[in-house]
Amino acid sequence: MIRAFRLAFFLALPALAGFLSPIRADEGMWLFNNPPKSQLKSKYGFEVAPAWLDHLQKSSVRFNSGGSGSFVSADGLVMTNHHVASDALQRMGTKDRNYYRDGFHAKTRAEEFKCEAMELNVLMSIEDVTERVNGAVKAEMKAAEAFAARRAVMAEIEKESSEKTSLRSDVIAFYQGAVYHLYRFKKYTDVRLVFAPEQQIAFYGGDPDNFEYPRFDLDFTFFRVYENNKPARVEHFLKWSKEGAKEGELVFVSGHPGRTNRLNSVAELNYFRDTGYPFLLQRLNRWEVLLNAFSGRSEENARQAKEFLFSVQNSRKARVGGLAGLMDPEMMGKKEAFDARLKEAAAKDEKLKEARGAWAAIEKAEKVRAQLIRPYTVLEGGAGFNSDLFGIARTLVRASEEKPKKNQDRLREFRDSALESLELQLFSEEPVYDEYEIIKLADGLTFLAAELGYKNPVVVRALAGKSPQLRAAELVLNSKLKDVGERKKLYRDGAKAILASKDPMIALAKSVDAAARQIRKRMELEVEEPKRQAYSEIAKVRFALEGINAYPDATFTLRLAYGVVKGYEENGKKIPAETDFAGLYERAAEHLNKPPFDLPPRWVEKKSKLDLKTPFNFVCTADIIGGNSGSPVVNRNAEVVGLIFDGNIQSLVLDFAFTEEQGRAVSVHSKGMIEGLRKIYEAHNVADELEGR
Amino acid sequence: MIRAFRLAFFLALPALAGFLSPIRADEGMWLFNNPPKSQLKSKYGFEVAPAWLDHLQKSSVRFNSGGSGSFVSADGLVMTNHHVASDALQRMGTKDRNYYRDGFHAKTRAEEFKCEAMELNVLMSIEDVTERVNGAVKAEMKAAEAFAARRAVMAEIEKESSEKTSLRSDVIAFYQGAVYHLYRFKKYTDVRLVFAPEQQIAFYGGDPDNFEYPRFDLDFTFFRVYENNKPARVEHFLKWSKEGAKEGELVFVSGHPGRTNRLNSVAELNYFRDTGYPFLLQRLNRWEVLLNAFSGRSEENARQAKEFLFSVQNSRKARVGGLAGLMDPEMMGKKEAFDARLKEAAAKDEKLKEARGAWAAIEKAEKVRAQLIRPYTVLEGGAGFNSDLFGIARTLVRASEEKPKKNQDRLREFRDSALESLELQLFSEEPVYDEYEIIKLADGLTFLAAELGYKNPVVVRALAGKSPQLRAAELVLNSKLKDVGERKKLYRDGAKAILASKDPMIALAKSVDAAARQIRKRMELEVEEPKRQAYSEIAKVRFALEGINAYPDATFTLRLAYGVVKGYEENGKKIPAETDFAGLYERAAEHLNKPPFDLPPRWVEKKSKLDLKTPFNFVCTADIIGGNSGSPVVNRNAEVVGLIFDGNIQSLVLDFAFTEEQGRAVSVHSKGMIEGLRKIYEAHNVADELEGR
Repeated sequence: MIRAFRLAFFLALPALAGFLSPIRADEGMWLFNNPPKSQLKSKYGFEVAPAWLDHLQKSSVRFNSGGSGSFVSADGLVMTNHHVASDALQRMGTKDRNYYRDGFHAKTRAEEFKCEAMELNVLMSIEDVTERVNGAVKAEMKAAEAFAARRAVMAEIEKESSEKTSLRSDVIAFYQGAVYHLYRFKKYTDVRLVFAPEQQIAFYGGDPDNFEYPRFDLDFTFFRVYENNKPARVEHFLKWSKEGAKEGELVFVSGHPGRTNRLNSVAELNYFRDTGYPFLLQRLNRWEVLLNAFSGRSEENARQAKEFLFSVQNSRKARVGGLAGLMDPEMMGKKEAFDARLKEAAAKDEKLKEARGAWAAIEKAEKVRAQLIRPYTVLEGGAGFNSDLFGIARTLVRASEEKPKKNQDRLREFRDSALESLELQLFSEEPVYDEYEIIKLADGLTFLAAELGYKNPVVVRALAGKSPQLRAAELVLNSKLKDVGERKKLYRDGAKAILASKDPMIALAKSVDAAARQIRKRMELEVEEPKRQAYSEIAKVRFALEGINAYPDATFTLRLAYGVVKGYEENGKKIPAETDFAGLYERAAEHLNKPPFDLPPRWVEKKSKLDLKTPFNFVCTADIIGGNSGSPVVNRNAEVVGLIFDGNIQSLVLDFAFTEEQGRAVSVHSKGMIEGLRKIYEAHNVADELEGR
Repeated sequence: MIRAFRLAFFLALPALAGFLSPIRADEGMWLFNNPPKSQLKSKYGFEVAPAWLDHLQKSSVRFNSGGSGSFVSADGLVMTNHHVASDALQRMGTKDRNYYRDGFHAKTRAEEFKCEAMELNVLMSIEDVTERVNGAVKAEMKAAEAFAARRAVMAEIEKESSEKTSLRSDVIAFYQGAVYHLYRFKKYTDVRLVFAPEQQIAFYGGDPDNFEYPRFDLDFTFFRVYENNKPARVEHFLKWSKEGAKEGELVFVSGHPGRTNRLNSVAELNYFRDTGYPFLLQRLNRWEVLLNAFSGRSEENARQAKEFLFSVQNSRKARVGGLAGLMDPEMMGKKEAFDARLKEAAAKDEKLKEARGAWAAIEKAEKVRAQLIRPYTVLEGGAGFNSDLFGIARTLVRASEEKPKKNQDRLREFRDSALESLELQLFSEEPVYDEYEIIKLADGLTFLAAELGYKNPVVVRALAGKSPQLRAAELVLNSKLKDVGERKKLYRDGAKAILASKDPMIALAKSVDAAARQIRKRMELEVEEPKRQAYSEIAKVRFALEGINAYPDATFTLRLAYGVVKGYEENGKKIPAETDFAGLYERAAEHLNKPPFDLPPRWVEKKSKLDLKTPFNFVCTADIIGGNSGSPVVNRNAEVVGLIFDGNIQSLVLDFAFTEEQGRAVSVHSKGMIEGLRKIYEAHNVADELEGR
């Protein structure tokens, strides 16, 4: 699945915003105050009317937990994905009621179930404040002063706005800081669950079908926003299309793509292709095999490893798709042409001369990165000590050293602003399972030795003259860090307590920390910092060339994408644009109804009630990425024809560049949603509300 | 499972025989004409009586397909593993009768089912012929002459013997050729199936439980040998023990270990630890994930990939276990001491001076090997072109070049003696599945690029300006080599036809062949040959030191091993020596009876009839390896107490060195066999025959 956008990514890539131009095809995640009018006009004969745009904007909803949604009734009904809602669904469950697994249906409004800690935002207005922000930054200021002045004026603008309008007001940088917009949001915090299907039909096909197509997922959930304890009356909501998405039709996606890296230079992509992705995949493969083998041994093992395993599988599929894109000469050719165009512009324009060395600087940094990545990953990335207890030990050891320092001198995860969430994690009562810890740590130590060499002093200290298995068992079984009280004591008592500790895991964390910190420093100074500076110069070149005629990189703000409902060809086979209910039952039968292809019981019982030719999922060419999960797909009349929930495997390169040869966004079909709601769930109240009956 | 020994190993390691001494613990795969009398006497107070030894020898049976067995009744009943019998069981099946999956039970002798192409051997006598063999080799002969003379005298001895005795007669080299023995075997070729359980109980727990313990596998099958269409009356057979194996008891294993590499020097083990195993595991992990993901997509995919997947999983587990052993300082310490002892002996003895440079020569060769292994694997090993069609194309291209050469100048797989089996494989009608071929090949090409670099000329030619996915699809879909007729035509018409061929897979095979042949040549000349010479010198040192006081490396000839029924400790937990029937049902329940932990239906139905405390499997410290599958485990009275079928994961280092701290041989318990035969299968005829009733 294109996971709901998370502020902290698992195995994240560096966050560097970018873009690719000139714009062709159905590319782009466009700002609502700068839509692709000319492209839509010339290619599809579609006029973007201001009222149409305003209506779509105010019908769109951002899930601040990281996802998208839309109003689909005047009474504040909100549509999103089951996988965007899954955190809320899991939190709401009790021992006896597993809403996440079994679904939920409020037959009346009284039954609608309030979700804790949810915030939905609706974008009400956009105002360009670039001049005011830049006006506060004087030419004579040093970098730190300029940074502070910019922060200050942004805070001032936000404060003024929220006082004046009572709306949440955020100043947001686009185009790597070339443009600042003030976004005002209406906030909804009383959010209630209306309907969710079983997780098994929402994520039908599990990992094998994840990122694949054809597909059969009913990945939807409905909430309702309330105000003053009553359903909110919303002026703008999306009507339901009678026909639903049709092959060849122009469609729009209004949602919140989380992050793209389309400015990445060819040197960085070459690094990913030649070193970064192959090494990451090696690690993901290793973990997937390890966790699968462990999970196969018992149901309890499977339960313990499930979350990590799924996360590894999801990442693995994403990277396999990404690597395939990086090995596609057409995609890379485009990126080369793009780099060349920017270089040429920088070479011609004296005002852009600072950028002339940027590409070489990135190339140099990527070479260093290729040298450092393997030891960095095992030492500082912790892959060589893969266990929760080691992570806890390292945090305690480092906290004892970092906390006494001045705030600005600390490692970033120990800054005052980060301590609250760090402590929350450190003191979590989440159980630690011995055997699971041991197999992960033994594998990590084996990996450490393979990467650094068996005779490397860090490895020798880490293994302490034992085999990885025996050493891991000794470390895990003899550590007291499973006890949260022990962690609290060590954290509170700091350096003295750490020094006095006899805990073997603490000792291990201490013994590798100098080497880990050293390689982290090198990565920061020799890779990250020169790249940050270089990309900022490249961004200036691009902005000088195109201004806001191109769309900015994704920033988890509302964007408009468009495309066509369209199949594609794969391995010589035509993959049709749509699937239908008949296909779902065929898929289950093909798999003898075995997990993860088993149907929930009511889907078996009620099969005969269904019109099996009803469309289920479909693909279109719109430009989406993580964070777009839950975005509505609408037609020219701004009516709902579908609901984005995934990208196919060929779309996984969209982080770097748009491609529509095979890359597709995957949606639930609007007719499939109604068919399911009415015939399987008998949720006529929800379906009636959607269809405006 | 410790696979039945195969002459051609999947992912085999180089075959270099060796040993480790001095002998301690329960180590050794002893020759029947040189049993470990003193060890058994001093440690266990057991006297090896000649009659006892002769009886055990003549009760032991070799399955020439690669496995062990034993006579267990006077009427020629033979006991072995289900996984040794599996080839025969699969061949015997028809569409309507799947003996492999469902089992077989001949209730009367008339129902016993004749197996085609099976040969069982019983060792009748051993004669030392070293003097005669060496006598034929004169000091003045050159290497090739000496080789021919040795071959000739061996053939002569074999011929004389078989004419005189009518027994199969093989001259076999032990201790790397220091000793030659004439082995005479009685052959049985009329072999009939008597009883086999369902594969699901024979290999209960599938891959997750493979090489693991505790364990619950009823991995047995019974055959009967016939002579003149009547059950053979055999003088020597093993009686059934009333009590079965008991914790702490001394037991013996009589069987045919396939191959060990205990002479491997530390330099070679370091290569395995630091380069060979990690790289092999990287590849196995990659394939396992690829095949699992492919298999997850459909039952048909799973069927296509099943054999390759299981083979990968089995190898992966074996290598994980082997690597753990190589990272065990105790094991490596022993090997270092062993090398040191031999080096010292060579340094002191002028007659052994040729060996003095051997360790350095191996170390040098292993360094070259470490440099070559990655490109060797993708290019010559074919991992960069992972598909059946590429293999076919390469064979055709090479055949067209090799066949016109003189026999001795050809690549070894094209020698006259190998052509029959090569053609059998090349013209096999086994189906080739497009999608399966494409995913394997796309992955292979991606791997190739990662290993050699995207801009390597071989990679550029292989990808032909396309992404691996598109290129793989193009190659597979446009190749005509799926058609066996096309293969035959190209093979027959040779170089001219290959030159004229427009087949894209043939073109790919041609375009990479020079590079592949070049690296193969380097591997042969710079690694294999110097090592062969060095190990031969080292073997002389060892033989000079110990003569036949130590056991020779395994050679798929009959050996005696011994040990104690004994549990072990793992991750701080005590693993008991025995499991029981109750444990089997607990394991199934734990897994909700889901595959591969589902019980065959009659095991569910007949549970109440069983005495659940009956022992099922057990472990002992005897020294075994692949080829020992199906070996009987007997007590001091030479009565059957169990049946070897596996080693635990800690035993997987036995290829290099014996270890009994955690390493264990895993057996079916004799009482478990009887309990299953009587109460589940109602095979009282078989049980009565075993128990001598």
